[in-house]
Amino acid sequence: MSGRNLYLSNIPVEEALDRFRCALEPHKRPPRAEEIAVIDALDRITVAAVFARDNSPLYDSAAMDGIAVKSAATHGASETTPLTLQHGDFLPVDTGDTVRPPFDAVIMAEELQEAGEGNVIIRQAASPWQHVRPVGEDIVQGEMLLPSGHKVRAIDIGVLLSGGITRVAVRSRTTVAIIPTGTELMEPGDARKEGGIIESNSRMLEALVRQGGGAPARLAPVADEYELIRETLRDAASQFDMVLISAGTSAGREDYTAAALRELGEVVVHGVAMKPGKPVILAIVSGKPVIGVPGYPVSAYLAYETFGAVALQALSGGSEVGMSLVRATLSRRLVSSLKHREYVRVKVGTVGGRLIATPLARGAGAAMSLVRADGFCVIEQDCEGIEAGTEVDILLCRDLEDLERTIVSIGSHDLILDLIADELPKHFPNTRLSGTHVGSMGGLMALQNGEAHIAPIHLLDEASGIYNTPLLKKLFPGRQMALIKGPAREQGILVQAGNPLGIKSLADLTRVRYVNRQRGAGTRVLLDYKLKEQGIDPAAIRGYEREAATHMAVAAAVQSGSADAGMGILSAASAMGLDFIPVGKEEYDFALLAESLETEPIRALIAMLKHPVFHQKLEEMGGYQIVGSGEVVRIDC
Amino acid sequence: MSGRNLYLSNIPVEEALDRFRCALEPHKRPPRAEEIAVIDALDRITVAAVFARDNSPLYDSAAMDGIAVKSAATHGASETTPLTLQHGDFLPVDTGDTVRPPFDAVIMAEELQEAGEGNVIIRQAASPWQHVRPVGEDIVQGEMLLPSGHKVRAIDIGVLLSGGITRVAVRSRTTVAIIPTGTELMEPGDARKEGGIIESNSRMLEALVRQGGGAPARLAPVADEYELIRETLRDAASQFDMVLISAGTSAGREDYTAAALRELGEVVVHGVAMKPGKPVILAIVSGKPVIGVPGYPVSAYLAYETFGAVALQALSGGSEVGMSLVRATLSRRLVSSLKHREYVRVKVGTVGGRLIATPLARGAGAAMSLVRADGFCVIEQDCEGIEAGTEVDILLCRDLEDLERTIVSIGSHDLILDLIADELPKHFPNTRLSGTHVGSMGGLMALQNGEAHIAPIHLLDEASGIYNTPLLKKLFPGRQMALIKGPAREQGILVQAGNPLGIKSLADLTRVRYVNRQRGAGTRVLLDYKLKEQGIDPAAIRGYEREAATHMAVAAAVQSGSADAGMGILSAASAMGLDFIPVGKEEYDFALLAESLETEPIRALIAMLKHPVFHQKLEEMGGYQIVGSGEVVRIDC
Repeated sequence: MSGRNLYLSNIPVEEALDRFRCALEPHKRPPRAEEIAVIDALDRITVAAVFARDNSPLYDSAAMDGIAVKSAATHGASETTPLTLQHGDFLPVDTGDTVRPPFDAVIMAEELQEAGEGNVIIRQAASPWQHVRPVGEDIVQGEMLLPSGHKVRAIDIGVLLSGGITRVAVRSRTTVAIIPTGTELMEPGDARKEGGIIESNSRMLEALVRQGGGAPARLAPVADEYELIRETLRDAASQFDMVLISAGTSAGREDYTAAALRELGEVVVHGVAMKPGKPVILAIVSGKPVIGVPGYPVSAYLAYETFGAVALQALSGGSEVGMSLVRATLSRRLVSSLKHREYVRVKVGTVGGRLIATPLARGAGAAMSLVRADGFCVIEQDCEGIEAGTEVDILLCRDLEDLERTIVSIGSHDLILDLIADELPKHFPNTRLSGTHVGSMGGLMALQNGEAHIAPIHLLDEASGIYNTPLLKKLFPGRQMALIKGPAREQGILVQAGNPLGIKSLADLTRVRYVNRQRGAGTRVLLDYKLKEQGIDPAAIRGYEREAATHMAVAAAVQSGSADAGMGILSAASAMGLDFIPVGKEEYDFALLAESLETEPIRALIAMLKHPVFHQKLEEMGGYQIVGSGEVVRIDC
Repeated sequence: MSGRNLYLSNIPVEEALDRFRCALEPHKRPPRAEEIAVIDALDRITVAAVFARDNSPLYDSAAMDGIAVKSAATHGASETTPLTLQHGDFLPVDTGDTVRPPFDAVIMAEELQEAGEGNVIIRQAASPWQHVRPVGEDIVQGEMLLPSGHKVRAIDIGVLLSGGITRVAVRSRTTVAIIPTGTELMEPGDARKEGGIIESNSRMLEALVRQGGGAPARLAPVADEYELIRETLRDAASQFDMVLISAGTSAGREDYTAAALRELGEVVVHGVAMKPGKPVILAIVSGKPVIGVPGYPVSAYLAYETFGAVALQALSGGSEVGMSLVRATLSRRLVSSLKHREYVRVKVGTVGGRLIATPLARGAGAAMSLVRADGFCVIEQDCEGIEAGTEVDILLCRDLEDLERTIVSIGSHDLILDLIADELPKHFPNTRLSGTHVGSMGGLMALQNGEAHIAPIHLLDEASGIYNTPLLKKLFPGRQMALIKGPAREQGILVQAGNPLGIKSLADLTRVRYVNRQRGAGTRVLLDYKLKEQGIDPAAIRGYEREAATHMAVAAAVQSGSADAGMGILSAASAMGLDFIPVGKEEYDFALLAESLETEPIRALIAMLKHPVFHQKLEEMGGYQIVGSGEVVRIDC
C-alpha cells in the first residue's frame, strides 16, 4: 500500500478559509472587463461609475395630457371670468410631448371646456411652468447613474438607456474549469461497464458555478494517471480564473491530485474539520485558486458551498441582494390619499442605532429615484398618512449590513458628492455615501431630526458675511457640533456657450430668462445676498420664481435653451459645456454632530476628503480649492 | 378633446388581482412541455415525476480504500492471533471500486500491515458486508427522484444523472411579448429627434421577465395608430403566453390600448387604486393575460411587479426559494465529534405548531438525502452533540409555508408513498407528503415523540395474528388514536427472474444467500413470525444479519446478484423484473393521533387514498387490494 497519503490535516473551517484568503491575497488582480450592450447587462457588475450622456426628459415636456399655453396669456381667468383661448394660442399635448417657447405651462384636459371652432375655455390662470417636467428633471447629463462595482438590476437598465447609455463596461464572468477525474468514470448515458461509476458531480458543480454568476467549463474526465492529471491542472490554471478538480482528494492509491498540485503550486490546506467534506484541498496554481472537491456527492456539495462559492464570490465581486422586510422610523410625515395604496420610495440609513427611512421624490417619472431608493414604504389604501417618528414596514431592496456602513447625507447638492459616492467604497471597503439633495436648510433640518449623519451646506450669514458656523450656532444651541471642511468652490452665472446675450454681471439678469434654485438652497441665499448688496429687486428678474433642485438641473435648463441664465457652480457649467461668469467663492462644508466624528464611516469620509485621488479628480473638474479639504472644525454652539 | 377616456376605475390592488385571477381561471391550460438535457435543466420545472433508471451505486462497492476480502476467511484474526492473507485471497480496492463475489467485505487500508510477497497481515476479523456500499444504497432503480412541478436545483442534476436519467421533461418557458407604443419613441442610441423620448421601459420589463424565469420577446415600437396597435396585440396574444404593452394606458388623445383590448377581448380592470401605477390595464385576449403597463418608469416597474410578475408566476409555476435560517426542535439526539464541524441533513415539519427537525442519513455518499433534505443543522466543531428536544438553528432550503402544508410521514416504506407524494400536490394544491423510511417501529416511536403526523406501519401481533391495532394499544395507552387504512398488500420472497434456484417456500431460504430487512421493519417481523410458525431457525439462514433499509434496496440486492433472495412486496419485485413467491397478505396502514384527523393535509391524504386516479395506479403496479383504502378506524387505547 505504498504511495498512500493516509494523513490529512484537520483544520477548522474558518481557519481554512482564512488561510486560503491570505494565500490568494498577493495574487489579486483587477477584474477583467468587457463592454456589452446595456440590454444584456442584467446581473453583471459595473467596472466603473457610469455617467449620464443625455438629460431625461430630453426637453421641457408635458407632465399631463392637456394643452400647452403661454402662462402670461392666461392671467385673469377664473370661475367668474372664464377666458376663451383661440386656436393657435395653445397646443394640444399628451404626457411626454415637448413644451416649446412661447409655451411655458400646461393645463390639464379635465379643466378644459370646448368652445367650438377649435377654441377652448379655461376657468383658472396657469402659473409659469405648471405641469411641465423640466429638461433633466429625472436624469441630468453628467450625473452619476451607477457607481462602480454595482450589480445591474432591471431598473438600472431602464435608467441607463434613458440617460443615453447603450453600452456599459462590466466585469467579465469568472471562468471556472471543472475537471472530473477517475479511470472508472462513465459519462451519463454511456453503455454500462463493469465497475463503472456515472460521473455526475461535475454537472452539479457546473450548475452551482452558473448560479453563482460564474462561467463554468466542464472538461472531459481524466483517468487516474499522475502526468495526465498534472498537465490538465497546469493547462486549466493557466487558462481559467479558477479550477475545481473533482475526486482524487482522499488518501487512496490513485489519489494523485494533492501531489500534482504540490508539484505545480502550493497546497494551502488538505483536510478540513468538516463532515461531510473533510478531504477537500485548497491550493494555488499560477496564482489561481484550485479546489480539490471530494468525490462523494454530499461532500462535493458542501465543499463547494463552503469554499468554492466563497472563492468565486471573491473573484467576481458583487453580492446577491434579495428583498426583505424591516422596521424603520419614518423621518418625515407622509400624507397619502384614501383613494389608493401608495408605494413611496425611501432611503434607509442607520443613524444613532435606529433605522431611519427618508421618503424620496414621489413622481412616477422619476426613474432615478428607483435606482437611488433603498426600499419602499407601502401606505395602504385605508391609511391617510403616517406621522414622522412612526415605525413602519420597509420592503428593503438592499443589504442591511450595507446600510449600516452607509453615510446618510442630506443637504445641498454638489458634484463632489457623486465623486465621493463612487470613490469611497474603492478605498474603504463597504463604506458608502447615500445622498439626498434638498438644499442646505433642508439638510440642517434632517440633522436636527436625527435623519442624517451629515448635512452638506453652504449658508452665508448675511449679517456677518461668514459661512456655515453662524447658522449652526443658531440652529443647534447648546450642542457639540462640527464642520468637516469641503473644498471651497466657485459660484457664478451659467450661460449658453459663447455667452450670446453678453451677460456680464448680476445686473444683466433683469433682461434675460432666469432659472432659480429652490428656497433654502445656499446658492439662492447667495444670490439674494448679492442682489441686496447691489440693490437689485428680485421681482425684476423674469424666472426668479422658476425653481430647479440642483446645479445640474439649472445647467440643463440653460443648455436646452429653456432659460438664458442660472446660478451654480463651475463644475456644473463645465460638465454641460456652458460659459461661467464668476460671482464669488463659497465654503461648502459637511455639518454633523461632534459625536459622529468617531464613527468609522465618518473617519473614512474625512480620509477621503484628504485623499490624493480625490484631489486629482477635483483638479480635473475645476472650480474647487483643495486647501483645507477634510479639516475638522469643532463648534460649541 | 373628443375620444378621450378620462375616467379610469379605482379598484383596490387585491381586488384587481382577484378579478384578474378569476377571469384567467377558465383559460387555464396544461403547461407546454419540452424534453431537455438534464445538464441544462437548472431552475426548470419538471412536468412529471422522474423515476430512477439505474441503481446508485450500480454494484456493491467499496466504501473505503483498502482490500476486499472473503469475510469467512478472516474469522479468528485478532491482535493476539494476526492472520496473513495470501495474494489472491484479497483484492486492493479504492473507494467506489466494485466488490464482487467471492469477496463480501472491505478492510480499511489503515488497519493493514504489509507482509511482503504481496501478502498482508490483518489483526481483526471482517464481518460480512462491512465497509461495502450495497447496490442501490443511495438510489434504487424505480424510486422517485423528483416529483412533478419541482424546480430543478444543482443537487437534483447530480442525482438525476446518478439515477441514469440524462433527459428530463420540463415546462416550456412562459413566452412574454413586450410591445412598446408611442409615435414619439426613439430607440436608445438613435439620433436625437425633436420631441423624441428614448424607449427604455420595454428593456426594463424584458429584464424583469427574464429574472422571473420567462422568455421575453421585445417587439419593435408601434406608432400611436389604432389599427396598428390592435393588430400587433392580436398577433402577440395568439403567438405568446402573455403580453405586456407599454404606455398608452392613461386617458390621453392617442391612448388606444384600452379600446383595442376591448375590441379584441375583455378588459377586466382599467385603473387600480395604487400610486404610482394607477392607469394599469388588466385584460384577456385569446385566453392570454395582457397587461397594459403605464408609461412612467416607476409606474411601469410597480405595475409589473404587482400584476405582471404574479401572472408570469401563475403561468410558469414553481416558486423561488432562498436559504433562510429558522429555529426548530431537534427530534433525535445528534452526536458529533469535536474533530469537525458537521453538516447534518434534516427534514423539517410543523407538528403540533412546532417546527420539528429530523436528522437524515449522514453518509457522504447519500446524494438522495440532499434532494430529500429540507435543510441543514450545523453542529459546530466545539460541540459534542445536541440532545433531542433542543432548539437548534436550521439553514432551510425550502419555503416555510410549504412545510406547514407538508405531512410528515415516518415509518415503514412502500412504493405507494412515492405515488402519494407525487399525486397529492396535483389534486390538493400545496399539500405535500415528506417520507422518511425507518421501519414500522421507528415510525411509532416518532409518532410518540411528536415528530411525525403519520406513521405508515404493518406490524403483526404474534399472539393474536392481528395487524397494527394491538401494537398501537400497547404503545399509546389511554390516548385517542386512529388508523387510516392503506391498501392491503402482498408480501413474498423476491428471487431472480426465472427463479433459477427453484425457491418455493421459506424453508428454501436455508440453502441460498438471503438479504434481510432491518430490525423493527414489519417485513422482518412477518418473516420472524412465519419462521417461528414453521419451526425454521433464523441462524440457519445465510445473510439473516445482512440488512437493507427498504423493499427496493432488497430488490436491488437480488437483482444485482449479490443476494439470491429477500422478502418484500410484489410491487418492488415487479419494478425490478424479479420473480415473486407469495408468503401472505398484510395490512399497511397509517397510524396517527385521532386529533390530527381534522387537519386539512390529513383530510387531503384520506381523499387521496380513496381517489380513482390513485386506485388506477395501484392496479398498474399490482399486488395491492384497493377495498377499504382510506377508511378511518378510531382506536381508544
